[in-house]
Amino acid sequence: MQETHTFTLKELAELVGGQIQGDPKTEIRALNGLELASPGEITFILDAKQRRQAEETQASACIVPPGCELTGKPCIIAVETAVAAARIHTFLLARPFQATGIHPTAIIGKDCAIPEAVSIGPHVVLGRGVRLGERVRIDAGAVLEDHVVLGEDSVLHANVVIKQGCTLGKRVIVHAGAVIGSDGFGFATDQQGRHYKKPQVGTVRIDDDVEIGANTCIDRAAFGQTWIKSGVKIDNLVMIGHNVVIGEGSILVAQVGIAGSTTLGHHVVLAAKAGVAGHLHLGDGVQVAAKSGIHSNIPAGTTVGGSPAIEARKWMKSAGLYNRLPEMNKELRNLRREVEELKAALGKTPEQENK
Amino acid sequence: MQETHTFTLKELAELVGGQIQGDPKTEIRALNGLELASPGEITFILDAKQRRQAEETQASACIVPPGCELTGKPCIIAVETAVAAARIHTFLLARPFQATGIHPTAIIGKDCAIPEAVSIGPHVVLGRGVRLGERVRIDAGAVLEDHVVLGEDSVLHANVVIKQGCTLGKRVIVHAGAVIGSDGFGFATDQQGRHYKKPQVGTVRIDDDVEIGANTCIDRAAFGQTWIKSGVKIDNLVMIGHNVVIGEGSILVAQVGIAGSTTLGHHVVLAAKAGVAGHLHLGDGVQVAAKSGIHSNIPAGTTVGGSPAIEARKWMKSAGLYNRLPEMNKELRNLRREVEELKAALGKTPEQENK
Amino acid sequence: MQETHTFTLKELAELVGGQIQGDPKTEIRALNGLELASPGEITFILDAKQRRQAEETQASACIVPPGCELTGKPCIIAVETAVAAARIHTFLLARPFQATGIHPTAIIGKDCAIPEAVSIGPHVVLGRGVRLGERVRIDAGAVLEDHVVLGEDSVLHANVVIKQGCTLGKRVIVHAGAVIGSDGFGFATDQQGRHYKKPQVGTVRIDDDVEIGANTCIDRAAFGQTWIKSGVKIDNLVMIGHNVVIGEGSILVAQVGIAGSTTLGHHVVLAAKAGVAGHLHLGDGVQVAAKSGIHSNIPAGTTVGGSPAIEARKWMKSAGLYNRLPEMNKELRNLRREVEELKAALGKTPEQENK
Repeated sequence: MQETHTFTLKELAELVGGQIQGDPKTEIRALNGLELASPGEITFILDAKQRRQAEETQASACIVPPGCELTGKPCIIAVETAVAAARIHTFLLARPFQATGIHPTAIIGKDCAIPEAVSIGPHVVLGRGVRLGERVRIDAGAVLEDHVVLGEDSVLHANVVIKQGCTLGKRVIVHAGAVIGSDGFGFATDQQGRHYKKPQVGTVRIDDDVEIGANTCIDRAAFGQTWIKSGVKIDNLVMIGHNVVIGEGSILVAQVGIAGSTTLGHHVVLAAKAGVAGHLHLGDGVQVAAKSGIHSNIPAGTTVGGSPAIEARKWMKSAGLYNRLPEMNKELRNLRREVEELKAALGKTPEQENK
Repeated sequence: MQETHTFTLKELAELVGGQIQGDPKTEIRALNGLELASPGEITFILDAKQRRQAEETQASACIVPPGCELTGKPCIIAVETAVAAARIHTFLLARPFQATGIHPTAIIGKDCAIPEAVSIGPHVVLGRGVRLGERVRIDAGAVLEDHVVLGEDSVLHANVVIKQGCTLGKRVIVHAGAVIGSDGFGFATDQQGRHYKKPQVGTVRIDDDVEIGANTCIDRAAFGQTWIKSGVKIDNLVMIGHNVVIGEGSILVAQVGIAGSTTLGHHVVLAAKAGVAGHLHLGDGVQVAAKSGIHSNIPAGTTVGGSPAIEARKWMKSAGLYNRLPEMNKELRNLRREVEELKAALGKTPEQENK
Repeated sequence: MQETHTFTLKELAELVGGQIQGDPKTEIRALNGLELASPGEITFILDAKQRRQAEETQASACIVPPGCELTGKPCIIAVETAVAAARIHTFLLARPFQATGIHPTAIIGKDCAIPEAVSIGPHVVLGRGVRLGERVRIDAGAVLEDHVVLGEDSVLHANVVIKQGCTLGKRVIVHAGAVIGSDGFGFATDQQGRHYKKPQVGTVRIDDDVEIGANTCIDRAAFGQTWIKSGVKIDNLVMIGHNVVIGEGSILVAQVGIAGSTTLGHHVVLAAKAGVAGHLHLGDGVQVAAKSGIHSNIPAGTTVGGSPAIEARKWMKSAGLYNRLPEMNKELRNLRREVEELKAALGKTPEQENK
């Protein structure tokens, strides 16, 4: 059984710099969703629309945005409500790192540097010269090949594979089944159609605070490095090609694909299933709609959609008209008929026109 | 060597409630495809088009729809021919469960409940408090974290990962490399662009008779549960976000993606690579064409296509006209020219129009 | 430490049938990218545009296409420059196979045929009757089920799963997490909406010199075999359905999906995220643009794009006009207004027209 910690509303409000309404001594042991919360728990709402639901929650307290205070329920009022809820939730769940050491079935190569306070699960395999930071957790079946570096407080979930020489920073989370450092997809084809593999001798560098989704693949560079900068969050089943660079704080939603040598500025957002061709640059803050296909550079700050993607508002207009193409086509036929009638009325015949 | 069982055509016909034509004592030991079948095997055709091919098969008998009886070949006549073939094939392949027990290299956590009749392969890892039903098979390298529940007659293929607390029903099949219960993709972003992880404390519930494809990912709920209801069939490389609910008997073909909190009614079909945005509802029996993108609720019984998806017949018209856009554009220019000529003939000039 | 081998420019030029400019005795120990190369290394350029950069490289020599010789830097002049670079790079990296034998934690089933010169990593699992060629390398956690055949010089990366009875040829590379031989996605549905699994009793056959990307899935056939012919290169997260046949030398880029029973001729190229429906044929040399959706047979030698895909040049025109749909629609309205004006001037009213 995990021990339960309890905090006062005051302690939680101070954590996120929020205001308190109601009893600051209200005791909270956990955070839960609006409908699932029970007494002793805190919940949260993000806007006034959820207010009525919040009045009925069983939670002992609620995190709310300014102007959405509840009647008769202690509240923490926080401007960045979602951030406050995430931080309070994380705080309530935090437990001291439980170092279970190295499981006897784990295989550890020569010359590894492993601190005492780590948790290495069953059947984990570490190659030669692997270096682990303090408090890393590596779950069952994960494989770290030769000379992998993993920074402190990082977590590799079950059956993750990190190929030789890749380096991961601090507080990195890699979800189950992800593969980091597989070969980039590069072949040279001769005139007979034979494909010659281009050796992929680069690595992957993952900076601090990156999260990588389940079964996502990040290929090693042909030369140099594929580089995921700090704070990037990557969802499941994403494909990142060789030599790609993803700028700080960017977000790649599920099933996105980025082809080789493309670079993203910071805080780029690619919605689900978007695809980006190779050797492009997406500027800082670019936002790409779900399922879009990017075939050209995108200037910083632009929101795009479609395939090939264009400025998002224009794309939405085109998408709307796409669905009205049958009506447009009918109108085109009507106009043709009427123009012919007008020409006839004026003594012109279609035959004359076509000459 | 697996033992061979032989059945009479009569026994097989009774299994599926089919009629017999020809010798009911014809002996059958296996089912095979039309071109591959050899004597002693039964095959099947689904419509009259395959009849000629069927006349040439080496099979000893054939399952046929009414009206497609073969001359000179024993037949089982079954209205739902494909269902009859699937059931007969499954019946012919059925063998008593072979319990191999727990492989000595498997790691079993504390307080697990494991019946005698199970097959747990090499290097499997079970966390604490895992509960397994009778006759489950867990293949090499699979990982079941703490408190996972797996119902009777279920099969987990090699290297599957089931995260802590997820529950799977009876007769569930999870193919190799699938990940169930990885964290949902949820972050709160502050004004400086820092992303705070929203802890994902829910689980995944998989009901009876669900099949899940290779390397597919089903995320755990933020709160509560992601829920795959009974009889759902999911193909490979599918992505299901947190808190999604998939109704009974729905079918998700390969590389489909469903974003968080979306719910599907029963018997929804998403063809390959379709994507559904978050917080939507697709009604019972909705059918979505391959590669479609869903951005709004879809009423029950509707067939949709395109991205953003619209009613399928309308979409097909639009798709056809999309390919004729150059012709439409040319006609537009022709009309413009001819209208200008008509205006000139009537003494109007373009300049006057533009004022 | 890996031993370093050094070769003369002459030896490398002879390997690829290239001409030498400059000192043929120039010593080369490695190949590297233009900007990363240091003395003792060779680099390469593919066209005249990279020439200026090449003049500044620290590399001791450069592989160049004819007409792009550098001043003051030894060169190998090769017509197929990229092929020459790939071959020289591969040659410089080549080392004798290091047989590490069978790791003591690997599980080997009965009746396996395993040559002495193999490298089988920790926690690898081989089922019964597996046959391995000379010099195969199987990395940690890979699972080869009963009766799998793996040809000489093949490499299976970590956590790969090869299901029972699949056969892989010589020099095959399968990247981490890929699954070969999972069940095809086949169900027969009765009138009550119950899905009956169609047993998938075929296998997968992979011919020589095939490369398969990380977390890619290739399903086994319903009957017979799914067949990947020699020299095919498949990227990460690709989905190949049951009974698909991929012709020699074809290339499938990341996140491509091919539905059941579709066949591809030789040297077909599917760019990233393209999808192909089932039971189709794509002729030899067909090229499909990224994100396309194929719903019909494509004749040999055709380049197509879009969804549903059409001839590529036509598609690019339509795609361009799609983005101009708002302008087209505006012009349609202008024409309507002007035609009404013309009709009014000629004494016709809209009401008369509509009759």
